[in-house]
Amino acid sequence: MSIYFNNAATTWPKPDCVAHAMSDFLGSGGANLGRGTASVRDLGTMGLVLECRERAARLLGGYENASPVYVTFTANVTESLNIVLKGFLKPGTRVVTTSMEHNAVTRPLRHLEKNGVELEILPCDRQGYLDPEKLAAALDAKKNDLVVMSHCSNVCGSVQNLEAVAAACRERNVRLVVDTAQTAGLIPLNAAALGLAALCFTGHKGLMGPQGMGGILWQPEFARLCEPLVEGGTGSFSHVETQPEAMPDRFESGTGNLPGIAGLNAALKWIEERGIDTIRAHENELGARFLTGLKKLDGLILYGLPEMVDKKRLSVFAVNFEGVDNGILAAELSSRGLETRPGLQCSPWGHQTLGCFPQGALRLSLGYFNTSAQVDEALQILADSLVVMRAQKLSAQ
Amino acid sequence: MSIYFNNAATTWPKPDCVAHAMSDFLGSGGANLGRGTASVRDLGTMGLVLECRERAARLLGGYENASPVYVTFTANVTESLNIVLKGFLKPGTRVVTTSMEHNAVTRPLRHLEKNGVELEILPCDRQGYLDPEKLAAALDAKKNDLVVMSHCSNVCGSVQNLEAVAAACRERNVRLVVDTAQTAGLIPLNAAALGLAALCFTGHKGLMGPQGMGGILWQPEFARLCEPLVEGGTGSFSHVETQPEAMPDRFESGTGNLPGIAGLNAALKWIEERGIDTIRAHENELGARFLTGLKKLDGLILYGLPEMVDKKRLSVFAVNFEGVDNGILAAELSSRGLETRPGLQCSPWGHQTLGCFPQGALRLSLGYFNTSAQVDEALQILADSLVVMRAQKLSAQ
Repeated sequence: MSIYFNNAATTWPKPDCVAHAMSDFLGSGGANLGRGTASVRDLGTMGLVLECRERAARLLGGYENASPVYVTFTANVTESLNIVLKGFLKPGTRVVTTSMEHNAVTRPLRHLEKNGVELEILPCDRQGYLDPEKLAAALDAKKNDLVVMSHCSNVCGSVQNLEAVAAACRERNVRLVVDTAQTAGLIPLNAAALGLAALCFTGHKGLMGPQGMGGILWQPEFARLCEPLVEGGTGSFSHVETQPEAMPDRFESGTGNLPGIAGLNAALKWIEERGIDTIRAHENELGARFLTGLKKLDGLILYGLPEMVDKKRLSVFAVNFEGVDNGILAAELSSRGLETRPGLQCSPWGHQTLGCFPQGALRLSLGYFNTSAQVDEALQILADSLVVMRAQKLSAQ
Repeated sequence: MSIYFNNAATTWPKPDCVAHAMSDFLGSGGANLGRGTASVRDLGTMGLVLECRERAARLLGGYENASPVYVTFTANVTESLNIVLKGFLKPGTRVVTTSMEHNAVTRPLRHLEKNGVELEILPCDRQGYLDPEKLAAALDAKKNDLVVMSHCSNVCGSVQNLEAVAAACRERNVRLVVDTAQTAGLIPLNAAALGLAALCFTGHKGLMGPQGMGGILWQPEFARLCEPLVEGGTGSFSHVETQPEAMPDRFESGTGNLPGIAGLNAALKWIEERGIDTIRAHENELGARFLTGLKKLDGLILYGLPEMVDKKRLSVFAVNFEGVDNGILAAELSSRGLETRPGLQCSPWGHQTLGCFPQGALRLSLGYFNTSAQVDEALQILADSLVVMRAQKLSAQ
């Protein structure tokens, strides 16, 4: 079995309980949500969905004492961000973002910009960090309606100073939406304490759930201000021809991803049992070991913070090697049993900020199920591959 | 185990292969799509997703020789319909629909109407059928941009004459979008032969897949005309700040529901192996048996076609009984081991058309895994429940 260093794309493996919970749901549960009577199976589905909302709200710091009502489920964080951005930003509004964003933020924003939303992009430094002072100055300079930003770069693992950013927004009464795709399940989050308008999350990365699950943790007032992106049957208020106002139905139309909710619920329970800090500590340890080895490799160009600092970087490493194409290197690594991701990782802005656009970088992202032995083996595979590729290049000249 | 007569909400059980395929994907596959290198697992995911698109295109009659490129996956048919309707209907356009639609069609249309789309609702007859001549006359009377309608009522099982409807639209160059939530997997469909602009489907009903999966089969030109509802990372054209034009990426942003695709793919294979006609014949047989027994019950009010006629009705029965509240009856049935769905089934228009608004009706919907013995037992439970409820009512007077 190959070594999996592509956990920033999706964590793998998942805890065994995830697939088991999904199979159990399909086999012995299986009822739809709010579309039956009150049979044992109907109640089973209701209980499951409620439990998953409650876990998400507890883990991420939901409003109104972590009320499950303000957690809505989506297919992924991209859908979450689209719901929030397109639901709130109308022509004439103004939004601020950073130069490290993923296309899940940039593409909706470029679309909205064409339709009359004013967009300001704050440059981050060469390690991918936003200076909160710069944000404060930008917010003071013009009237803004929203700030949207990633908590952590999916390219190089730089974690923004969310406390300072949120404080700057709160002090100026500007709403803040955070994309936690890389940090939920790894770094403690508390949306209510930070005063976030919406916390967008995905289920299949740090939250260890299956692909196909994401969600939004809403500030109640903000949820009321956003127009739903998708409307339809909610199993509630069926006589009303317009989308219900009630949460969480307002943003959940049609039959939800119930096996996915079963899987995510099991994954969240697994995380609760271990604790986020334990999970992160293990990943940090692996990351530090890997980083030490990386720095010994010839011709390394490392993007992002060059040290493991807890809560300032995750074990997501973007690198290039002098004279080596990162795409060809990734293929070589893959053939030798090391799975990574080359190129732009859906973040052209990020690579521009880090200074590696358009060639991109090789991304190596570690996860909880990696081991120290795998880290050492991966470093050896990297070293061997570089020797071979450089030799091939010399012989071709 | 109770008798499950709520297959119009979601079919249950699913074939065993569905949960197995999902577990297998999570356990031994698990790679994301287009977000790695070309490892064995990356290629496994690519192959799986392609295979599922190909099966859907073959089963539903996709364009360009059932090209997988024109199949996009969504979370459910509600999302499919929202993508199509909101992507195509701009202020000033005109859309025609029927009086039998589900809220998945009516709520987006009422929203669009508020934003300047002109909406015409053609009345269906008391059995839930649209007269294709009436549609033709309506299309001749005014210039229309789109017709959208359900192939079959989720309330009473009435199947529209899609061939005649599609011919009327084709002859007048009006685009037709069909909601096949109740018919995909049960009634043969051929989007390309019918000339549909888009065929919207759900994965968890007749297609026997897991909840959380749906899709759209696109006419290529129509796909180009529709604006995507959700934009973001596609794992492709990552340097471009706007949503790619290429299909199927254009309508698929963020990480997809890969376990769901694995489950749906297995379900489609299961359907291919049995054949739609075999599946429908079994359901028709059960339906005819049930209908014969239903008609013997005192005080029956039956909505929809009062006979089983192949391809004119499915085994979805909406009923009321004189003097009996359908919600209380459903609870009584549930307590005796028969699962149904009372109320409005997310289709207030349908119930208005059938003459049972606002009280709704009791829906009993049969599926492939029901048996003749269950049909007989269900009829007995119904008869017993009615006797008890009527006796209680008499003693309360």
